[in-house]
Amino acid sequence: MNTTFLAAAIQMSSTADKKSNLDQAAHWIREAAKQGARLIVLPELFNCLASREEMITQAESIPGTTSKAASSWAKQWRITLVAGSMLERAGEGKAFNTSLVFTPSGEQSSVYRKIHLFDVDLPDEVTFQESSFVTAGDRVEVVDTPCGQLGLSICYDLRFPELYRRLVDKGADILTVPSAFALATGRDHWNVLLRARAIENQAFVIAADQHGKHSDEIVTYGRSMIIDPWGIPLSTAADGQGIAIASIDRSRTQAIRKRLPALAHRRRLEQWGDSW
Amino acid sequence: MNTTFLAAAIQMSSTADKKSNLDQAAHWIREAAKQGARLIVLPELFNCLASREEMITQAESIPGTTSKAASSWAKQWRITLVAGSMLERAGEGKAFNTSLVFTPSGEQSSVYRKIHLFDVDLPDEVTFQESSFVTAGDRVEVVDTPCGQLGLSICYDLRFPELYRRLVDKGADILTVPSAFALATGRDHWNVLLRARAIENQAFVIAADQHGKHSDEIVTYGRSMIIDPWGIPLSTAADGQGIAIASIDRSRTQAIRKRLPALAHRRRLEQWGDSW
Repeated sequence: MNTTFLAAAIQMSSTADKKSNLDQAAHWIREAAKQGARLIVLPELFNCLASREEMITQAESIPGTTSKAASSWAKQWRITLVAGSMLERAGEGKAFNTSLVFTPSGEQSSVYRKIHLFDVDLPDEVTFQESSFVTAGDRVEVVDTPCGQLGLSICYDLRFPELYRRLVDKGADILTVPSAFALATGRDHWNVLLRARAIENQAFVIAADQHGKHSDEIVTYGRSMIIDPWGIPLSTAADGQGIAIASIDRSRTQAIRKRLPALAHRRRLEQWGDSW
Repeated sequence: MNTTFLAAAIQMSSTADKKSNLDQAAHWIREAAKQGARLIVLPELFNCLASREEMITQAESIPGTTSKAASSWAKQWRITLVAGSMLERAGEGKAFNTSLVFTPSGEQSSVYRKIHLFDVDLPDEVTFQESSFVTAGDRVEVVDTPCGQLGLSICYDLRFPELYRRLVDKGADILTVPSAFALATGRDHWNVLLRARAIENQAFVIAADQHGKHSDEIVTYGRSMIIDPWGIPLSTAADGQGIAIASIDRSRTQAIRKRLPALAHRRRLEQWGDSW
């Protein structure tokens, strides 16, 4: 178990060209691994981010082309890899938005399927109905890795603090948030919500975002970040493709949780019932 | 019912001198009311913020000196007043940390007793055991006023997103957060957590803070804020005593909740059980 290690969030500008996307992911993983990263997180839909039709057409089974590539990268560089997300076939015209985790020996150690789907209608900015082609998952996933207990989430999940409470209840001390966060919402919400999840759960947050224009509908915010359990942004990616990299010291999590024991101060009032 | 009105958060530098504190509160309420504020929020412990011994000695019954003064201010200026908080006697050496709401006719319309108590130990920065003299409340309070459905909370409650979810479930569209937020934690957490509560609950947040040195133990952060349901800070108080004032347009809340229906996207998975 590593208590101090480098972690990297990879920022991509994925398109409909899957081969190019996988080449880019391999390129940035190599760069991050050469810089010493032991834990690497790819963004949401890193293997194909385009129109709905394009994405559904290119959805894969697991195992499949993308998961096999991700496994090989993890093994090649002996890293823990959170393979952002990809569309996983789930019947005719439907898919899950799925995040896989690979061990440094290349084994798949966890599957998380996005629970909260992005259905919004901001006129002149972003209109998107993820639920029209994605099926929601219903399992909260924490995975034990050499780099810590990873609590898995994807993009729009970020708006739901209840999910992160349950990840922490299940032992998470590092929260991963692969995303393709819309520009229109990201400029006001991305940084604030990521830091709030770190602060209120006293956990590291590693958020790998997409950046750029991916289709007529999808323009993403970027600013991939690594945040410490006090809420301090340790590293931020500039615009375009690139890496946010930072040193993770897990002993800091325990120190903060001891000195400001907010997690232990949570109340479970009878009145609260099951309304959550 | 006002759909658009001015609201004010009053920032104070309260001490052990209760008469001076009440005079100051009256002064700033007059200023805010003259500027046109219809809803005014005072900070936590506005009537006495000092050493533990001093505060316990000056704790009051309700009704008492402070609540009667607050009632008279509400009636005089025809405002809805969230009277920050005060220590309310609860037996020998103990008190509740209590927020009262008054109608424009001066009637007390709600009582909220702080649910989460601030017990921390940040060496060389802040050490405080609120639970050594304060008894925790156990009722979630939303109050119907001419300015909206106010969801009540106090200071350290801000770290617990579960409370705000329940306030919203009970109909709140304006969240009030009277505070005496410690400088050591405020500089990294105040702004971020307030904005996150606004964004994730799509509700206005009115946060009236203390600012300055109140005792050897208590130094507060200030930066009282009013935030809109998109998370945009509409107004911030400068250091020292003063007012943050902003226009509240409640139709904006409904518009945002319709366009980005995140509150309707909350999941209640069986797996989540009663773990919150």
